[in-house]
Amino acid sequence: MPNPETSQASKYAPPNMLSQSRVTIENVQPQVDEGTFPSKRVIGEKVRATASIHTDGHNAIGATLQYRKTGESDWQETPMELKQPGLDLFEGVFEVTELGYYEFTISAWIDAFTNWSRDTKKKLAAGQDVTLELTEGAVLINDAIKDAPASAREDLAKYAAMLDTFEYQLVLQSAALHDLMHKYSRRGRVREYNKILSVMVESERALYGAWYELFPRSVTNKKEKHGTFKDVIAHLPYVQDMGFDVIYLPPIHPIGKAARKGPNNTLTPGPNDVGSPWAIGAKEGGHKAIHPELGSLADFHELINAAAVRGIDIALDIAFQCSPDHPYVTEHPEWFYRRPDGSIRCAENPPKRYEDIYPIDFECEDWEALWEELKDVVVYWAQQGVKVFRVDNPHTKPYPFWHYLIREVKRVFPETVFLSEAFARPKVMAYLAKCGFSQSYTYFTWRNNKEELTTYFNELYNSELADYLRPNLFANTPDILPDFLQYSGRSGFMIRAALAATLGATYGIYGPPFELCVTDSMPNAEEYKDSEKYEIRTWNLEDPHSIKDFITRLNKIRRSNIALHANRNLKFLNIDNREMIAYTKSTEDGANTILVVVNLDPHHTQSGYLQIPFAELGADQSFQVHDLITGVRFFWTGDTNFVQLDPQVSPAYVFKVLRKLKSERDFDYFA
Amino acid sequence: MPNPETSQASKYAPPNMLSQSRVTIENVQPQVDEGTFPSKRVIGEKVRATASIHTDGHNAIGATLQYRKTGESDWQETPMELKQPGLDLFEGVFEVTELGYYEFTISAWIDAFTNWSRDTKKKLAAGQDVTLELTEGAVLINDAIKDAPASAREDLAKYAAMLDTFEYQLVLQSAALHDLMHKYSRRGRVREYNKILSVMVESERALYGAWYELFPRSVTNKKEKHGTFKDVIAHLPYVQDMGFDVIYLPPIHPIGKAARKGPNNTLTPGPNDVGSPWAIGAKEGGHKAIHPELGSLADFHELINAAAVRGIDIALDIAFQCSPDHPYVTEHPEWFYRRPDGSIRCAENPPKRYEDIYPIDFECEDWEALWEELKDVVVYWAQQGVKVFRVDNPHTKPYPFWHYLIREVKRVFPETVFLSEAFARPKVMAYLAKCGFSQSYTYFTWRNNKEELTTYFNELYNSELADYLRPNLFANTPDILPDFLQYSGRSGFMIRAALAATLGATYGIYGPPFELCVTDSMPNAEEYKDSEKYEIRTWNLEDPHSIKDFITRLNKIRRSNIALHANRNLKFLNIDNREMIAYTKSTEDGANTILVVVNLDPHHTQSGYLQIPFAELGADQSFQVHDLITGVRFFWTGDTNFVQLDPQVSPAYVFKVLRKLKSERDFDYFA
Repeated sequence: MPNPETSQASKYAPPNMLSQSRVTIENVQPQVDEGTFPSKRVIGEKVRATASIHTDGHNAIGATLQYRKTGESDWQETPMELKQPGLDLFEGVFEVTELGYYEFTISAWIDAFTNWSRDTKKKLAAGQDVTLELTEGAVLINDAIKDAPASAREDLAKYAAMLDTFEYQLVLQSAALHDLMHKYSRRGRVREYNKILSVMVESERALYGAWYELFPRSVTNKKEKHGTFKDVIAHLPYVQDMGFDVIYLPPIHPIGKAARKGPNNTLTPGPNDVGSPWAIGAKEGGHKAIHPELGSLADFHELINAAAVRGIDIALDIAFQCSPDHPYVTEHPEWFYRRPDGSIRCAENPPKRYEDIYPIDFECEDWEALWEELKDVVVYWAQQGVKVFRVDNPHTKPYPFWHYLIREVKRVFPETVFLSEAFARPKVMAYLAKCGFSQSYTYFTWRNNKEELTTYFNELYNSELADYLRPNLFANTPDILPDFLQYSGRSGFMIRAALAATLGATYGIYGPPFELCVTDSMPNAEEYKDSEKYEIRTWNLEDPHSIKDFITRLNKIRRSNIALHANRNLKFLNIDNREMIAYTKSTEDGANTILVVVNLDPHHTQSGYLQIPFAELGADQSFQVHDLITGVRFFWTGDTNFVQLDPQVSPAYVFKVLRKLKSERDFDYFA
Repeated sequence: MPNPETSQASKYAPPNMLSQSRVTIENVQPQVDEGTFPSKRVIGEKVRATASIHTDGHNAIGATLQYRKTGESDWQETPMELKQPGLDLFEGVFEVTELGYYEFTISAWIDAFTNWSRDTKKKLAAGQDVTLELTEGAVLINDAIKDAPASAREDLAKYAAMLDTFEYQLVLQSAALHDLMHKYSRRGRVREYNKILSVMVESERALYGAWYELFPRSVTNKKEKHGTFKDVIAHLPYVQDMGFDVIYLPPIHPIGKAARKGPNNTLTPGPNDVGSPWAIGAKEGGHKAIHPELGSLADFHELINAAAVRGIDIALDIAFQCSPDHPYVTEHPEWFYRRPDGSIRCAENPPKRYEDIYPIDFECEDWEALWEELKDVVVYWAQQGVKVFRVDNPHTKPYPFWHYLIREVKRVFPETVFLSEAFARPKVMAYLAKCGFSQSYTYFTWRNNKEELTTYFNELYNSELADYLRPNLFANTPDILPDFLQYSGRSGFMIRAALAATLGATYGIYGPPFELCVTDSMPNAEEYKDSEKYEIRTWNLEDPHSIKDFITRLNKIRRSNIALHANRNLKFLNIDNREMIAYTKSTEDGANTILVVVNLDPHHTQSGYLQIPFAELGADQSFQVHDLITGVRFFWTGDTNFVQLDPQVSPAYVFKVLRKLKSERDFDYFA
């Protein structure tokens, strides 16, 4: 129940409204939940701050954007420009160049000098006497002189004096004076926006990257031999050649023996069954230990370094749950839920029970020590050189815990990246992103047709979500073999790969089942049959059925086209076939434009007429497109052009748009 | 420049997040600008508060809406229900029954009892042993007993005891226990929403009413005789018979002689020219005085009372500007803008000058006394019995001034209604509504075709605007004779009247030019020729060309169909003719449903097939519609029905939907 003492009942009467500025600043973007959470950018991105700024009457407005790295005492200032007069929309831009937090706010005021200059020009044009106006202008300039630094005073005084001469018209036209006055004219009753908004700046990896998930224990040529970190090191060229930036490993910690699961999640394992890596903790240790069969800590360091040499980040899984054998269970029984008979409660989603997993009681009495210990787990692996973390089921742990953990880890390791595996309801998924996760798994996995994809990606990139939730488009995971992939054959895998790799600046696959187009599932389920979660598998990586060459091509295209390193630049195009989808991504300067057309039907050749948004592509009525998958080039002219895709050959075009086409106008004698 | 001392840099780390509830409350509606301004309702309306409330895992959530009249110390509490689980959307409702301000907020917590009850039922259904669960349930009930009032303890204890018997299944099924536990179970770590939101409650007139603007001086049968308040009293039956609720009078104050305007806004008036009522102030007085030619204060009181007897409110114009003859100019020269030569600056919009108007300097040094005096002007007229004010050009005065004035007047006269005449940019129009205006003129005046109307009214009624901006749909004003009316003849006036009267709970016309279908304009302008703003006009009210009978019919329909007393209930229907528009308004209980079809083409008969949203109309696949304009009845069946309108007869159907049609199922022997 709110306390009447601290009631904000008076809030509907803005404080000191009587003495405030006549200028109003509204709808300031970007901001997340009224500024409670930072919006997100990566190094080198721009923060484009917009606001509706308005006042009464015909008054011109001056506005500045102030920004700084959080912790610095001085603000930097950049003018805001009126971009859409009808909406009173102002915009200012600054760049974020360092990891950590930035903050910004806005000031605005009635710009008396611009009012004066504009009105006086109009009166002059109408032949009216402006004697009094010139005197009024001199007052404004002389006021500025009082506040200006010595360096500017002389110039200002020169202009003030000119108003008294026949040269007064020059004063009204002077851009130099306009700039001086923007800086030094008296800002009467400045409106300061009532909040300082924050921006969290992360490394480029938070926005851009191709992920490859693999089970190290399956990097082996026979089921009986447990793959090791050393095997993964030997396997690196395979992943590197395909063009991946991140290798994500399921938990690498000792696996519990109590209630261990057998193949296909059975409850009756044999003595040699390896168990699920997510049943974390055994007598060999818990979340800071390494499963002995994978190798030593030194081997792990070697893997990190060998991957780094090849430009690959090793990402670890953070799954905060314990096997009954986890050392925490005996050392900190108070961190778990106790039942009335003194037993520890296992994980359950009634009527299902997961006897091999003890959930942690994040609200136990000893929660502060518990939270610190769990945070130290992440810090420990960051100290070992891991900078990318995929967090398992964050939506089953309290939001405040993640807010605390990510913030504390980033305080020491600002380059860390956290991926949230929350296949939860939309508000939950979004809130975890607000709490600090750099990236999120999404519903992409289940969005297949044109309408689903268009709606979903417009929601992700064209709503406020885009300010704090960065998708990581996994096409499959060890938990999810989507129906579409089960029934669409090799072309289906290529379709999903092409969509993931071009719709998302970050995407991922779980291999080798993905590139090998594995479709064996448990009956009526999205679970893989004979899942690597419960057993060691071997794979024939040289299977001619593999689509690794297609994936390699996609990743090469991603690397060399920076338009694909962003998300908010996605624009869908019209194409008159509901089985085909088309979209562009373009850099802000237009120097790099990618146009993608995908045949969403894995079974049939489809064709259609594509509408070309010439203006948006910065093109004239004709240009060349170069398909970076097959190498084919088309010369397109007019506002619609024909496209056709046979999914058995390639279900996608990833065109580079080459704008400059020669025409008769390019010849010297033209015009 | 923000002060680093008071910087909110720490805001992105919500304070005390570590110790806070796991539950999150987001997107609370209604709220205006993060709770800075109240949302608006009229007496008897409901406040439907919604929020996204969620937490981690599978936890059930308990939530309550707390509300009270502002100033009361005790909160009332009503449960919030989960309306859309996929969006975690909860809703609670309360009714506002008194003028003034209400406030509300929300609390939410993890509902341990519902969690327990839900999970235990699932385990029982799966045949699992629930011995420990029953003990856990007893703990929850016994905790509630400790906090519950004596009256509830016995019942709770009975249920706790039953858990120990074979009747435990009854405990799990008991709705009575569920209610008791909702009230008394321990609410662990309650999340209180971080704001108390406000609702301004106004009289019904703020939402619903038909307005008629007239110039009292033209209530005369010859140009030479200045109409008076007594003439207006004699004229009341004419306006009452048409069914209007409000008569709005242009300024009734003494009119300045200095720089007085002649007919058609000319600068060379004759000695008998009456001038513009908006050139306020002469030697006879200013904003608190009455123009002597209209009558005395006693006459004015008589008009107010005579109108009240007929159910009509008299609305006054508030135009805060002065003629050079206004007493303020000599008594308070400091309230005006001074130029360098000591003269007072007249109103201007360069290169235009308005020599008959001095604008007021709202930021002058003596602003506090000035603001108080202007507020007292409104208080004075409220004391004379005026409750409705139409404010002239509020967008040329500072926002904080209006916020102050409306709030101060409403403190004493909470029933007052303020209409903002701000034909300004959208953000400005909206902000004046936020500052407290009850109603606003809109762009309806210039929205004519189907797409324009659909887009605009969806924006007005289905966006956040609907929480604070109430439209008053004037079809014409003394300043605006829209192009559509100039070129569409009598049918055009009927079209606009039908749209205004049914799209808006409040609408208005400026008569008699509207009902007489006057189309004479100044060349290439929306200004009336020989405008009443500058001269006395006489009108033949019995002209057979008049559409007063049509207007009378519309106003009768409005009075007897409360579905038309609201705005947010507007829904557009599909009709396959771009010249025709169709929409419904329905009461929440579905008891009153109006379906409007308008032919927007004033020249041709148009017809089309209308799609019937049976489910929304609460109807079966057939029903009767009764046109309240012509009396015709149609029996409609199937999902599309044919409609045709000849604009020369009536350009609109205003159907009452009669749902209960007899069919074979209504006979006893059926089924």
